[in-house]
Amino acid sequence: MVATPDHSGPPAPSVTIIGLTGVPEILPDADLAGLVLASAEHSGLRLADGDVVVVTHKAVAKAEGRLLDLRTVEPSPLASQYAAAWNRDPRQVEVVLRESARIVRMDRGLIISRTRHGFVCANAGVDHSNVPGGELVCLLPLDPDASAAALRATLRARADVEVAVVVSDSFGRPWREGIVNVAIGAAGLATLIDYRGQPDNDGRVMSATIMAVADELAAASELVTGKLDRCPFAVIRGYPYRRAEGSAREMIMDPAQDLFR
Amino acid sequence: MVATPDHSGPPAPSVTIIGLTGVPEILPDADLAGLVLASAEHSGLRLADGDVVVVTHKAVAKAEGRLLDLRTVEPSPLASQYAAAWNRDPRQVEVVLRESARIVRMDRGLIISRTRHGFVCANAGVDHSNVPGGELVCLLPLDPDASAAALRATLRARADVEVAVVVSDSFGRPWREGIVNVAIGAAGLATLIDYRGQPDNDGRVMSATIMAVADELAAASELVTGKLDRCPFAVIRGYPYRRAEGSAREMIMDPAQDLFR
Repeated sequence: MVATPDHSGPPAPSVTIIGLTGVPEILPDADLAGLVLASAEHSGLRLADGDVVVVTHKAVAKAEGRLLDLRTVEPSPLASQYAAAWNRDPRQVEVVLRESARIVRMDRGLIISRTRHGFVCANAGVDHSNVPGGELVCLLPLDPDASAAALRATLRARADVEVAVVVSDSFGRPWREGIVNVAIGAAGLATLIDYRGQPDNDGRVMSATIMAVADELAAASELVTGKLDRCPFAVIRGYPYRRAEGSAREMIMDPAQDLFR
Repeated sequence: MVATPDHSGPPAPSVTIIGLTGVPEILPDADLAGLVLASAEHSGLRLADGDVVVVTHKAVAKAEGRLLDLRTVEPSPLASQYAAAWNRDPRQVEVVLRESARIVRMDRGLIISRTRHGFVCANAGVDHSNVPGGELVCLLPLDPDASAAALRATLRARADVEVAVVVSDSFGRPWREGIVNVAIGAAGLATLIDYRGQPDNDGRVMSATIMAVADELAAASELVTGKLDRCPFAVIRGYPYRRAEGSAREMIMDPAQDLFR
C-alpha cells in the first residue's frame, strides 16, 4: 500500500498490477496453471480471491499448441501475389488469409481482417512465435474464453483461489496511432459494466456509458508485461470487478449496430 | 508492495494506481494543481518523482471554464431537425456540431465527429457537466496538451516534484462494445513507445509494434476513478515511462495512413 497510516481521509481506492517473473519458455502442452502458480511464487506472490490474472494470447496459444511451421504451408496464388507486391513471406500471408473469416483491408503489406471469433485486427492475430527453432508462427487460441475458463478452473482446483482470468492481445485501432492491449478471452468477471440508468453526481441519469473493463484490465497489464514477452503473466489486485461467467465475445460489436465503423 | 520479503526471484515489476479522494466539486477557475495536491494529502499520498497524474477531461474543462449554458444556444435548422428525429435536445446537438471539425457519422441520435484537435469520438466530447445548477454542458479543453503541461509545471513549482500528466476521456471505438479511457492530453512522457527494431526474445526484429502507452495509462486509471466522476484524479506509481515533452496529438493517426478506418 502506498497510503501512509495517518492519512486523514477514507481509504483511497488502489489497484496494483504485478508482472510475474521467472516464467520459462512456454512449450506446447505446457501446464499453464502450473506456470502461473510457479511464477507467482517466484515473484513472492500468493494468488488471492478477487485477483485478476492476465495472460497474453501468445502464452495461451503456445501452451495449446497453436503453432504452425511455415515450412508446411503452401501459399495460394493470392497470397503469393500479395506477398510479392509488398515483400512479405507468402507462407505467412497464406496463414493470415486462412485464419480470416472476412478481409477488412489489404494494403501496404498489411491485412486487417475479422477472425473466426469475430475480432477485427491486423494479420488475424497471427504472430511470430518466439519459440526457438523452426519457422513457427503463433495463431490465436481457438476459443480464448474457454482457455480463460479452463485456467480459472485449474487455478481454483489447485490453489483454492477464486480469480478472474483475462487473455490479452495487442490490437491496432482506427484514428489513433499505436496498439493497445485488449481482452480476447475472459472468465469470472463481467467484461462490460453498464452504468446506464445509474444517476451521476447530480442525480441525472447518464446516457450510453458501458465501460469495457476487461479491455482496461488488459491495457493496464501491459504496463508491467511489456511487449517483449518475457513477462506473459500479470496479476491485478484490488480491482472490484463484477463476478460473472464472463466472455470476451460479449465485447464484439454487432456490425449492424456499429456506428463507429 | 505485495511481494513478501523472502521471495526467491528478482523483484517483480509492479505498478500501483491510486484514486485520490476528497476532491470537491470543481468550479470554473479552480486551482487544479492545488486540488490535486490537497486530494493527494487527503488520500495519505505524497506525489513523488516519476508518478503519472491522470486527470479526467471533465476536471480540466471545468477548471478552465469550458462550460456552456444550453439556455444561451440557438440551434441551427440542421440541429433542430436531427434532434427532432431522434428525440434529442436541439441545443445540445447544436453544441456538438459547433465543436466538430468534420462529421464522421450521424445516425440514431448519435454524432461521431472529428474534433478540432483531431480526436474522433462521440458527440465531439461534449458531456453533461455534473456542475449543479443551470443547464451546463462541458466541452473538451481547448488544448489538452497545454492543460497537461500547465498542471505538470505548477505541480513542479509548488511541490518540487517531477511527474507526467495525462488528461483522460472515455471514447467508443469500432468493432468492440463499450468505451475505454484514452489520453487526450499529455505532458512529461512519451505517449507512444516504438519497439520496432528491437529484437524480441529470439533475436528477431519485431515488425510494427508501437505501443500507445498513454492510452494504456488512461485506461488503467479508470480502474480506480470509475465513471461517476467522484474521483477525477488518479496517481500511477511505478511505471517506468520514457521522459519526453509529450503530446497526445502525436497519437492522432494521419487519416491517409489509417488502414484501420
